[in-house]
Amino acid sequence: MADREEEQQQQRLPVVLQLRPVFAIAPAEDRFLQKFRFLKAWESSMPKDLFLTTHAQSVRALLCSGGTPVTADDLRCLPSLRCILTTSAGLNHIDLVECRRRGIAIANSGDCFSEDASDYAIGLLLDVLRRISAADRYVRQGLWPTKGDYPLGSKLGGKRVGIVGLGHIGTEVAKRLVAFGCSISYHSRKNKPSVAFPYYSDVRDLAANSDVLIICCALTKETHHIINRDVLLELGEKGVIINVGRGALIDEKELIQCLVQGEIGGAGLDVFENEPDVPKELHALDNVVLSPHRAVFTRESNSSLHDLLIANLEAFFSNKPLVSEVKEE
Amino acid sequence: MADREEEQQQQRLPVVLQLRPVFAIAPAEDRFLQKFRFLKAWESSMPKDLFLTTHAQSVRALLCSGGTPVTADDLRCLPSLRCILTTSAGLNHIDLVECRRRGIAIANSGDCFSEDASDYAIGLLLDVLRRISAADRYVRQGLWPTKGDYPLGSKLGGKRVGIVGLGHIGTEVAKRLVAFGCSISYHSRKNKPSVAFPYYSDVRDLAANSDVLIICCALTKETHHIINRDVLLELGEKGVIINVGRGALIDEKELIQCLVQGEIGGAGLDVFENEPDVPKELHALDNVVLSPHRAVFTRESNSSLHDLLIANLEAFFSNKPLVSEVKEE
Repeated sequence: MADREEEQQQQRLPVVLQLRPVFAIAPAEDRFLQKFRFLKAWESSMPKDLFLTTHAQSVRALLCSGGTPVTADDLRCLPSLRCILTTSAGLNHIDLVECRRRGIAIANSGDCFSEDASDYAIGLLLDVLRRISAADRYVRQGLWPTKGDYPLGSKLGGKRVGIVGLGHIGTEVAKRLVAFGCSISYHSRKNKPSVAFPYYSDVRDLAANSDVLIICCALTKETHHIINRDVLLELGEKGVIINVGRGALIDEKELIQCLVQGEIGGAGLDVFENEPDVPKELHALDNVVLSPHRAVFTRESNSSLHDLLIANLEAFFSNKPLVSEVKEE
Repeated sequence: MADREEEQQQQRLPVVLQLRPVFAIAPAEDRFLQKFRFLKAWESSMPKDLFLTTHAQSVRALLCSGGTPVTADDLRCLPSLRCILTTSAGLNHIDLVECRRRGIAIANSGDCFSEDASDYAIGLLLDVLRRISAADRYVRQGLWPTKGDYPLGSKLGGKRVGIVGLGHIGTEVAKRLVAFGCSISYHSRKNKPSVAFPYYSDVRDLAANSDVLIICCALTKETHHIINRDVLLELGEKGVIINVGRGALIDEKELIQCLVQGEIGGAGLDVFENEPDVPKELHALDNVVLSPHRAVFTRESNSSLHDLLIANLEAFFSNKPLVSEVKEE
């Protein structure tokens, strides 16, 4: 009887659709289930479009992760949808044009991940410059006593660092690097008059004037392969590139060629064009640090994300403005 | 003829003794040889004490690395010695009591390595907290596509970091960590009234109030095994320890036991008690980053070191004060 009451109570809660599992919320699912009812498309035996059409009237909110495409076809089945929450900072998995046309608001992870992502960018940069992971392998393989001192790395202080995308993450990256004695410049869609760092409107010019490039912009049609062979050659044979944005910001094939041929100095990569597949050629390189898309995730940032998602959903269902709505520029 | 003149000219240069090879100056040996004549004890077929006694009158300056012991026996053979230059920051390889008795001045690497050492401490800390090297191994082993997401690490921001030894390196470490949003406290021989961070006179109290300990003090009789089992247990099972000082600052056996039994959370170790041997038990641990004593060395810091050594030797042979003399406190 208690179970039935509980079930009835759950049925009265506002509905939130998930197309695929949103792993980031799993540790806190109980918190969500006290306030919302999840409709899980992948648990149904129905084909997805039939499932969506069946629930079309009740679905006003959709929750997804950065790895789940939300296509125009999905949206066409969901005429009542007014809000999409994504657990990612980036929106490249969502058909934004179709959302705009349908008046669907989108909220992302806001500022939750900026600090972790920038910490990780610095960690990858220190690792590549000072060869920390490679030296760790050297020690674990027992080579220190037999082969002697490990080759010297290069100093972070004094490096000219070019940041591609000076948003939340890029700004935090810059703040940290100043404390290490680096000089900062940046490229973004527009010059930011409130920022004192030098601005380059052309990313090739930024690369030509940098020892290090840190990529932390959003992936859009305009930024796809923004780092191409030309940019890498401008960065040069001692140059280091760090990517904590999205894999497709870099032309990965060209990057691999530049690394293998010594046309750039090294790379720290948290993201790849075809995750979770990481090109085999990279596995053999010692001037590269490879990371399985972990830059933004820590236990702490995950917990902030849960708070933010709940706050967004509560705001939406009370007809209040979303907390971390992404506004068009 | 020209060769002979050159040789005669070399013979007139001030003599600098090396007991064992000083690898750090190898890339710049030519610069030194324009101004000084090296006497290389290890190249002689004579036993060391006979060699030293033979050259006793001419040797006023000695150059050594941190790995070369300079013992009371050596010093007894060198009555004219007035100055020891070491390429290290630490002096634990030199018999300081005997030097004091004999009025021998000592110059170390001064500030040359502070920035690199502190950068490396931050690199190790980010690596342990965010599992960068371990995740790199995971990717290189091809486990990402088969085993899925790598476990979450922990955020650096907000961590309470205790610095053991707030000298040049510790101060640089603190400066960087403030930019990451950490709160800092410290232990050293004495409270430093000019420093705003909280001071703990007992390193156990510091550990009890810290999530992370960074060890960057000098190795002396007083600091030998300053990090013992009690301190590690106070740091606790989520605590992380970073050592860029000397191996013997930590009781390595106890550290290994604490790591294996999960009594502390992780460690980033650039130094070990019996280098280059790294205890096998550590090789198997994923919560540990192992580094072959590279924290202070980069191409850039090495070049600064050469400048400093030459400046010290020129000062000494012109009867001027040493540039980076270590004064007793």
